[in-house]
Amino acid sequence: MKTQTQGSRLVGGPNYAPLSETTIRTFLRSIPGLTKLLGGPAADWAVREVGDGNLNLVFIVKGSAGGLVVKQALPYVRLVGESWPLPLDRIYFEHEALGHQARAVSGAVPKVHYFDASRAAIVMELLEPHIILRKALIRGTFLPRLAKDISGFVASTLFATSDFAMPAVEKRAAQALFSRNSKLCKITEDLVFTDPYRIANLNRWTSPQLDAVAARFRVDAPLKLAVQELKWIFLTRGEALLHGDLHTGSVMVTQEDTRIIDPEFAFFGPMGFDIGAFMANLLLAYFAQAGQAGPDDDRIAYREWILDTLEAFWRGFESRFLALWRKGGDGDVFSGALFADSAAAIALEGFRGRFMDGLLADAIGFAGAKMVRRILGLAHVEDLESIADADRRAGCELRVLHMARRLIVDRGSFRSIGEVTQMARHVGGSNDAWS
Amino acid sequence: MKTQTQGSRLVGGPNYAPLSETTIRTFLRSIPGLTKLLGGPAADWAVREVGDGNLNLVFIVKGSAGGLVVKQALPYVRLVGESWPLPLDRIYFEHEALGHQARAVSGAVPKVHYFDASRAAIVMELLEPHIILRKALIRGTFLPRLAKDISGFVASTLFATSDFAMPAVEKRAAQALFSRNSKLCKITEDLVFTDPYRIANLNRWTSPQLDAVAARFRVDAPLKLAVQELKWIFLTRGEALLHGDLHTGSVMVTQEDTRIIDPEFAFFGPMGFDIGAFMANLLLAYFAQAGQAGPDDDRIAYREWILDTLEAFWRGFESRFLALWRKGGDGDVFSGALFADSAAAIALEGFRGRFMDGLLADAIGFAGAKMVRRILGLAHVEDLESIADADRRAGCELRVLHMARRLIVDRGSFRSIGEVTQMARHVGGSNDAWS
Repeated sequence: MKTQTQGSRLVGGPNYAPLSETTIRTFLRSIPGLTKLLGGPAADWAVREVGDGNLNLVFIVKGSAGGLVVKQALPYVRLVGESWPLPLDRIYFEHEALGHQARAVSGAVPKVHYFDASRAAIVMELLEPHIILRKALIRGTFLPRLAKDISGFVASTLFATSDFAMPAVEKRAAQALFSRNSKLCKITEDLVFTDPYRIANLNRWTSPQLDAVAARFRVDAPLKLAVQELKWIFLTRGEALLHGDLHTGSVMVTQEDTRIIDPEFAFFGPMGFDIGAFMANLLLAYFAQAGQAGPDDDRIAYREWILDTLEAFWRGFESRFLALWRKGGDGDVFSGALFADSAAAIALEGFRGRFMDGLLADAIGFAGAKMVRRILGLAHVEDLESIADADRRAGCELRVLHMARRLIVDRGSFRSIGEVTQMARHVGGSNDAWS
Repeated sequence: MKTQTQGSRLVGGPNYAPLSETTIRTFLRSIPGLTKLLGGPAADWAVREVGDGNLNLVFIVKGSAGGLVVKQALPYVRLVGESWPLPLDRIYFEHEALGHQARAVSGAVPKVHYFDASRAAIVMELLEPHIILRKALIRGTFLPRLAKDISGFVASTLFATSDFAMPAVEKRAAQALFSRNSKLCKITEDLVFTDPYRIANLNRWTSPQLDAVAARFRVDAPLKLAVQELKWIFLTRGEALLHGDLHTGSVMVTQEDTRIIDPEFAFFGPMGFDIGAFMANLLLAYFAQAGQAGPDDDRIAYREWILDTLEAFWRGFESRFLALWRKGGDGDVFSGALFADSAAAIALEGFRGRFMDGLLADAIGFAGAKMVRRILGLAHVEDLESIADADRRAGCELRVLHMARRLIVDRGSFRSIGEVTQMARHVGGSNDAWS
């Protein structure tokens, strides 16, 4: 009975095999409506495998009438190979998370055409002419909608799946399901919160330039303690259904549209983790600008725009989240009926402010942890990797580490998001970042 | 697929029917070994239904060779009737929790002879001549082992099922399972954290004596806010597998032995909740002593023994938990390898102290909430109910409410357990408890 309920497979099975540019045609033809969406005949469809992430197969399929994307889980980590197995189930959690997100906020995630559990595949909307946000930030593209769209997405999805909005029995049922996405959580637990602070085979950094700081981080007692506190929060606080991997590679943009993709790391965790992930990746983009600047493109205005976007992201999040909270949800905590009298309403409003302060502190700490792992851990970011000159790259990376350490250790002492951007300017502007 | 994985029944089915004093004989005879344990023939077994709790059937069966207990879940709340349905699954979670507890600490829970999922029944050890701890406290029985045994149980079970000791993937799997015990959690959520602070049909209190204070609690803004903060913690923090209902009716004692029973409310929650539940029930027993005292039995020494036990309980918990933590577990957080250098080891030891301070604050807050619900909510305790004179009872109950409110609102300002017992003496000693 234990086996049936705990170990049952959510996706895959005897029919599972990685799709190829050939077999994908047969698969798509078998799904009602898709041939019409693409425009036949299937033999004429252009199929391209474009997965540039670390884990999955991603096909873009185009016909005479339209296009779509097929994302299929592989039973191992693509970046590493079959020696690192990873459960196919993650595509099930991605599909479930997309559903929660689509219900919480309209038009922010790709539309799902079809979910095939046995093939561990999602057939979904082709986002065109969207590009990955990270690439836009590297190019220096201004995106006026970005802060508002992402803050709206984060506030709406976190609120909708929290105990403010979701009845407790329903939330525990959802948590029962997503708690099974433990292998993906374990990747974050190890790569973000542990490996950068110890000797680990998978770590890499710009060497020899960062050798000394990497060694210093491994014996930095206040830093290691603060990171383990953050890990404890990550492991124990099921506040809302998180995207779980909300970096700038999980966002696709045009000037008119913003979409959030790839929630396969979704789980019930601390809200500050999603907020901090996005902050971290804006800060990584900010500190990389010095490496992308050239004689005809100083990036000074763009760097400021990134910090403005970071401030607007937090402020937009806070304002949207508070608006939803004041309006009230169907959740089981802080219910409106208990705070109807004016003394209680005033007390609750004061608490809301303190709650947001605590959330900002969590987010700042998680942001710092996400920055460190991109410099000293396994998975790096193109913002910095694209800086070919190692000394120049290392200069940017030192600034990232300097700021990240402060964010982690002093996360409770920032009184506003403005103090975070002010610190970024200070760290980013100095020529001797790490003394 | 959703139905299969989320809605599947853990116990019960077509063979389920409440056992009777007749059918239980056939059932027990069918289980290998039990006839020998009891001593046949089955027709001579003495069968007695003794369930005095609110939810289940409990049979004591005795034969010529020995005895046993059969606990069977009913599909509704026994206290209320069939109008309040409750899932049979809770007996599954109780059985699972007994397994975790037995692995964490030996000899603290009843031995399980047999678990019958289809009948929703556990056949277990008969504890004899044990009595329910609450009854011992009402009688004024000194129990020298109590503090040490309970603190050892709580520290060992919470540590073993926390991220200090349990690998994250294993803990998330256990959490996935216990998150399905949501209907039982919902009872606690409603009856402890919501109903006493609003007009609710199920509330009752000693009336008219407590009418004014009950009304005052319903408009007490700082109190309501603090209770909702505690509810948020209850709903979101999956720190360890809790017993979930650790009051003095869930403990059976002799002078030589202490056993903890009835973990059907088990779930992954905040560790302070179990600790606070036990503290609350010692404090309820303390404030009830004034009602149990008579001309030949002033209970003065016994009241002090209860407070000594409360202090020894917390101190024993803290010392055992810290010993386990320092020894180290197989968990994924604060791993020993990260804190091997002496600066890190010193920093970690400082953090351990702050962690215990935070846990004490949580426990004190939860203790207050558990005290209020026993005076103003649905389920009361025999410690106070047994005081026949309503004025005398109300006097004790007012002291409970006075202290409980302080514990909830000021939970972060107690610097030691000694300040809690000092407050109890102060509140309990005054003749005009509530002014």
